Amino acid sequence: MSDTKRTEAFSDGVLAIAITLLVLDLSVPSRNDLHGSLARALAREWPAYGSYVTSFLIIGIIWVNHHAVFELIGRIDRIALFLNLLLLMTVVTIPYTTHLLATYLTAGSGARTAAVVYSAVMLAMSCSFAGLYAYIAHRPELLAEGVDPVAVRASIVRFSAVGTALYLATVVVAIFSAPLCLLAHFAIALYYCFSQIRSGPSAADARQNRQEP
Amino acid sequence: MSDTKRTEAFSDGVLAIAITLLVLDLSVPSRNDLHGSLARALAREWPAYGSYVTSFLIIGIIWVNHHAVFELIGRIDRIALFLNLLLLMTVVTIPYTTHLLATYLTAGSGARTAAVVYSAVMLAMSCSFAGLYAYIAHRPELLAEGVDPVAVRASIVRFSAVGTALYLATVVVAIFSAPLCLLAHFAIALYYCFSQIRSGPSAADARQNRQEP
Amino acid sequence: MSDTKRTEAFSDGVLAIAITLLVLDLSVPSRNDLHGSLARALAREWPAYGSYVTSFLIIGIIWVNHHAVFELIGRIDRIALFLNLLLLMTVVTIPYTTHLLATYLTAGSGARTAAVVYSAVMLAMSCSFAGLYAYIAHRPELLAEGVDPVAVRASIVRFSAVGTALYLATVVVAIFSAPLCLLAHFAIALYYCFSQIRSGPSAADARQNRQEP
Amino acid sequence: MSDTKRTEAFSDGVLAIAITLLVLDLSVPSRNDLHGSLARALAREWPAYGSYVTSFLIIGIIWVNHHAVFELIGRIDRIALFLNLLLLMTVVTIPYTTHLLATYLTAGSGARTAAVVYSAVMLAMSCSFAGLYAYIAHRPELLAEGVDPVAVRASIVRFSAVGTALYLATVVVAIFSAPLCLLAHFAIALYYCFSQIRSGPSAADARQNRQEP
Repeated sequence: MSDTKRTEAFSDGVLAIAITLLVLDLSVPSRNDLHGSLARALAREWPAYGSYVTSFLIIGIIWVNHHAVFELIGRIDRIALFLNLLLLMTVVTIPYTTHLLATYLTAGSGARTAAVVYSAVMLAMSCSFAGLYAYIAHRPELLAEGVDPVAVRASIVRFSAVGTALYLATVVVAIFSAPLCLLAHFAIALYYCFSQIRSGPSAADARQNRQEP
Repeated sequence: MSDTKRTEAFSDGVLAIAITLLVLDLSVPSRNDLHGSLARALAREWPAYGSYVTSFLIIGIIWVNHHAVFELIGRIDRIALFLNLLLLMTVVTIPYTTHLLATYLTAGSGARTAAVVYSAVMLAMSCSFAGLYAYIAHRPELLAEGVDPVAVRASIVRFSAVGTALYLATVVVAIFSAPLCLLAHFAIALYYCFSQIRSGPSAADARQNRQEP
Repeated sequence: MSDTKRTEAFSDGVLAIAITLLVLDLSVPSRNDLHGSLARALAREWPAYGSYVTSFLIIGIIWVNHHAVFELIGRIDRIALFLNLLLLMTVVTIPYTTHLLATYLTAGSGARTAAVVYSAVMLAMSCSFAGLYAYIAHRPELLAEGVDPVAVRASIVRFSAVGTALYLATVVVAIFSAPLCLLAHFAIALYYCFSQIRSGPSAADARQNRQEP
Repeated sequence: MSDTKRTEAFSDGVLAIAITLLVLDLSVPSRNDLHGSLARALAREWPAYGSYVTSFLIIGIIWVNHHAVFELIGRIDRIALFLNLLLLMTVVTIPYTTHLLATYLTAGSGARTAAVVYSAVMLAMSCSFAGLYAYIAHRPELLAEGVDPVAVRASIVRFSAVGTALYLATVVVAIFSAPLCLLAHFAIALYYCFSQIRSGPSAADARQNRQEP
């Protein structure tokens, strides 16, 4: 297995574990502390469910995009390896910030702090991703055979700057309202699922160039 | 690695982690709160053991069926990717609903609520699975070479509608009795293990068609 | 990927997760409840360390043996798949029984119960393994090309009955003394690491037959 | 899949899970026990963040180095398998020692004990790694084709003794100051990320020899 394939497999493993660990953020109401019906207690857990679904979609999208980037890579060097490790570190933090947001979403004062932290980690993830992508894009020797370096470079804005701008916006939203911030993250996730990704991101274009040079 | 193979590997990872995280639902009785013998305390944990074994079998069967479906797929598109992500989201939720059912199975009022939630997540899983299967079945261009589209389409009822109907029935059972509902899930799991799967689901037929066209 | 390879990959994933989840059995002493020095509090945790190391070795050995068996398999059927799932279920339970043993090893009355449960799960694991091996051994059509069915069948006793007998003995030891039982498990693990496995189990013999027919 | 590839895949799985489980060391402040603002409560968690980032980098580096060593290996025997299992056991312990260090870093008396334990496990990891490397280096029959046994043996000091010496030094630092010890670990991790690894470790040299014999 080449270094690239092995890095991709390791990253896939970390992403698969991080996305699955999100379930640990859903806590079963304690049987002894249950006041009223279980149905009502579960209904009160809506911030946990909303955060869970949102973070699940986000990590799922990171996986899809991570894969798209590695399709372009033919060779990996130490810097790229380190940038990828940084990206993974931010993704692995998501189950924690998801738990934080779920716990404080309906708290008075802490809600905005939690939302800012949640958004900041997403922003850091987006920046790491952009950094990895920009680094690769500027080193044609790392690209896979047949991948057009010009197309890859041209796609930096579309592929990474948009995400960074969106997540920066969520940090601002978080300062005003935590629930609105969660909604914004959910909307961004849906947007990525249906719109940008489907209409063909630049990565896919570059891949196509490779397949039909 | 093709998109299909990588999606399958990622899904396998998530399924393997979800099935293993079930062990976290088994809690060791606190040494300080132990009234009476440990053997008796462990015996009182039977709802946890029953839920654990049942959910383990169910996720195991999902893995087998997921594999059978991906045997039919030659190419994956964004919608299928998203439907697969939805399916994984429901499966990842199972350790949580298992814990919920185990905690409340012997509670007076909460038991039925917990059983309804457990069954509802299984129903959602079954629907996602049916959705993914139906989507693939109606797009011959996504099928692997030699797979007979007519056989695949003909098998939708057998392969996905039956499961959905069975899990819908467990929701109804849950309204009457939580322990009976767990028993029903266990029975369905055994049925899938021995009967339907062994006698050759349509997916296997279609695969056979592919191998001997 | 063939069914056999994919089953092996899934099993590897489950084994890797189960072995890693053992770390969750090591608990950090609460800072508020700390009476005396941290060093002393950690020293009191020796049952947890001992159980951790022992279970880690055991799951590691299961992985090695599981691999050896799958080397012999060329094709897998539903029964073998189900027997393999049973084996995985017992392995996934090990982090729980390890935690149970660690918690109660120094308790007065609960210690033997915990040791019996720990040993019983190991016995169940050993029986599942023996069942899987015996099933494969008696179906020459499932063996890989060049594997000698007679050699495989002849090795059932060496490869599976010995383990089952050893773990049955630990159940008996558990009734008398929990620490002695843990020591017995540790000794068995070391024995498997150095003696039986190194001197060439029958599975390796059969593999050799395959490579040099 | 050969034994070597499968051992590498299993090790990758364990490393990926261990690195991801680090997130469980980050605990969300309890909403009921929150005195003052959430921001302040989170700021007080800096030992957890520092330990998390440091351990994440360390496990990431272990992964890179583990990969470099397995590049050199063509065949694996039982002793190497067992040494690798020992190495994995120390790595799997890291999420626990990370949690321990994070909990006690700002405690009066326990801090140094926690730092010694953290450093001792890193030292044990480094020794296992050195042991595995030295074992392989002295058995030319285990090396991959084209790998120069002399170059591999010559690199033992650079590749494993340096790390062992560095981690031994952290044990000494731990006796004086826990925060300084964490800083030392972070500095070592950065050093490995940027300096030693980039300037080409001996393993890479030996690999080059293999590719251009």
